[in-house]
Amino acid sequence: MATKRINMKDIAKEAGVSTATVSYIINKRSDQVIAPQTIKKVEEAIKRLGYVPNLGARALASRHSYLLGLLIPQTEKETKLMFSNSFYGSFLSNFEYEARKKGYNILISGTDVDESYLDVARKRSLDGIVIVGVEIESDIKDLKQIGIPTVLVDSYGMDKELSSVTIDDENGGFLATEYLIGMGHRTIGLATGYLTKEGVNTERLKGYEKALANHGLPKDGRYVYSGTISYEYGLELGLQLAGSPERPSAVFVTADILAFGLIKGLKKGGLKVPEDISVVGFDDGFLASNMEPALTTIRQDVDEKARIAAQLVIDAIEEKEHGSNIVLPVSLVERESVRKLVLN
Amino acid sequence: MATKRINMKDIAKEAGVSTATVSYIINKRSDQVIAPQTIKKVEEAIKRLGYVPNLGARALASRHSYLLGLLIPQTEKETKLMFSNSFYGSFLSNFEYEARKKGYNILISGTDVDESYLDVARKRSLDGIVIVGVEIESDIKDLKQIGIPTVLVDSYGMDKELSSVTIDDENGGFLATEYLIGMGHRTIGLATGYLTKEGVNTERLKGYEKALANHGLPKDGRYVYSGTISYEYGLELGLQLAGSPERPSAVFVTADILAFGLIKGLKKGGLKVPEDISVVGFDDGFLASNMEPALTTIRQDVDEKARIAAQLVIDAIEEKEHGSNIVLPVSLVERESVRKLVLN
Repeated sequence: MATKRINMKDIAKEAGVSTATVSYIINKRSDQVIAPQTIKKVEEAIKRLGYVPNLGARALASRHSYLLGLLIPQTEKETKLMFSNSFYGSFLSNFEYEARKKGYNILISGTDVDESYLDVARKRSLDGIVIVGVEIESDIKDLKQIGIPTVLVDSYGMDKELSSVTIDDENGGFLATEYLIGMGHRTIGLATGYLTKEGVNTERLKGYEKALANHGLPKDGRYVYSGTISYEYGLELGLQLAGSPERPSAVFVTADILAFGLIKGLKKGGLKVPEDISVVGFDDGFLASNMEPALTTIRQDVDEKARIAAQLVIDAIEEKEHGSNIVLPVSLVERESVRKLVLN
Repeated sequence: MATKRINMKDIAKEAGVSTATVSYIINKRSDQVIAPQTIKKVEEAIKRLGYVPNLGARALASRHSYLLGLLIPQTEKETKLMFSNSFYGSFLSNFEYEARKKGYNILISGTDVDESYLDVARKRSLDGIVIVGVEIESDIKDLKQIGIPTVLVDSYGMDKELSSVTIDDENGGFLATEYLIGMGHRTIGLATGYLTKEGVNTERLKGYEKALANHGLPKDGRYVYSGTISYEYGLELGLQLAGSPERPSAVFVTADILAFGLIKGLKKGGLKVPEDISVVGFDDGFLASNMEPALTTIRQDVDEKARIAAQLVIDAIEEKEHGSNIVLPVSLVERESVRKLVLN
């Protein structure tokens, strides 16, 4: 981003306020009372001029709140957070622990579709923000401009100037599908959540399609099942597949919790896993090995992902580092939910 | 609590400050800068005089922060929160959803052994606090005196003036044990977390002992296994029991997640459930029915518990209600993890 080096004086002039007022607003000084209209005027001036704060100076002047926002954008209005999915639970436990050790508390919020990260950050004087999952690009730009350290988790297609942690999602989808092909499967389905443009599910789908293409197998939209990442959707889909003659011989499922529901639904519908249909999951939480059948799945290290997210945002707040993009590896864990097909 | 009706003037006199200063402190006015020593003096005066704020007046005067604290006391130093246990995950998802609908954000904190709820509440200007699990009595008294609405979840032996939500834990332990006795079991173990004086595990143990006594069966300390509520401890215990000739024919486990680990450990050790040993769990999360064998367990409604906790604390903040003690019922869900023994 090529920005003319604008300073606080320029903003003060543009907004018609004193430089001190601009400084108070930029540095989130909670001991100063400033009228909302004034804040608005200054923020608009900041936007118009494309001001990027000098973070070093800011850290010296500002009082840290030692509060981190863990924001989980909701893709639909008025939905609950997904912490009953142990993936999110493990992320939170490790994130909070890492932050607590360094003296930070966590504000947790499922931002609604029409809510701005910036509003939450400002209202709560957050020192930094970690956004898990799908994000809204215009909001991210606002955060960056205002200079609030932000770390993106499991998000694609973003500005590489922001710190981020992801796993190698595409490779996860590729490994799962290659494995199924190697086990003799030729009609392979994919069960997943919403396929948002820059979300992890789309990356896993890419890997799945790449493996199919590698082996000259056709993409077939009828075998791509997209709903919510939930036990409930898995259950529904399992029942539906069990009743359909047009089903694939194997399904790559982009989350263990969805695979658990799917297997339950398949069983309820009278099918056996893996005798009648094979399943590969994604996540490898602590329950995957305990299911019946034990789930073959793509393993990711969610504890490490959470620790890194906390470290990155705290490092940015404390001026130790700027802008790392970490990609963690994945691997396939072979268990009992895939049957080897004998090819004719 | 019989308290002389003390007002702010009395506190101001006692602390040697102005009445306005006392008002600012009591009403958590974030737009006023007050020296920490002054706050300390006033808080000490409040304690000495046993002042209980007039909540009605306070609500009018104060600016709400719309921030609720969800505090999860850690029973050991430097431990992670237990959100990978889907019980806690479901609680959080429902609590956050209920609070968000009413305009509140959630601050989440695993308060360390030596950290005061009051410090967190004051530092963060929390409107109200929900404490899940074991609590520290002296801290609760401080919160009450300062007048911060507080709701206790899964806590026993507390001051009934505070709002609380529990389930009928003792009856849960009783139902599980009665069922095992009815199925012909005579040596019944109990696997659980720490048996803290006022925690849920102790209540479930009471129910277990009551059922044994009802049938003239002896209490046997060798069959009470106490560790942490975790998959890992269950796994360890399962392996240990599998290798021991002195094991009971059935185990009542006070959390599903612990039962999952236990069953895995028993299987690893070469035993079959329920053929060789029977297991009853507690919680009935969405995975219990999907395990192999499907888990017979005590069902509690964690979603409802979370909703009620959020409603109670918000009602107290918004002056709609004071001090309800809600006890939710439990029931036994019979599945496949208990074998019927034929008695000689």
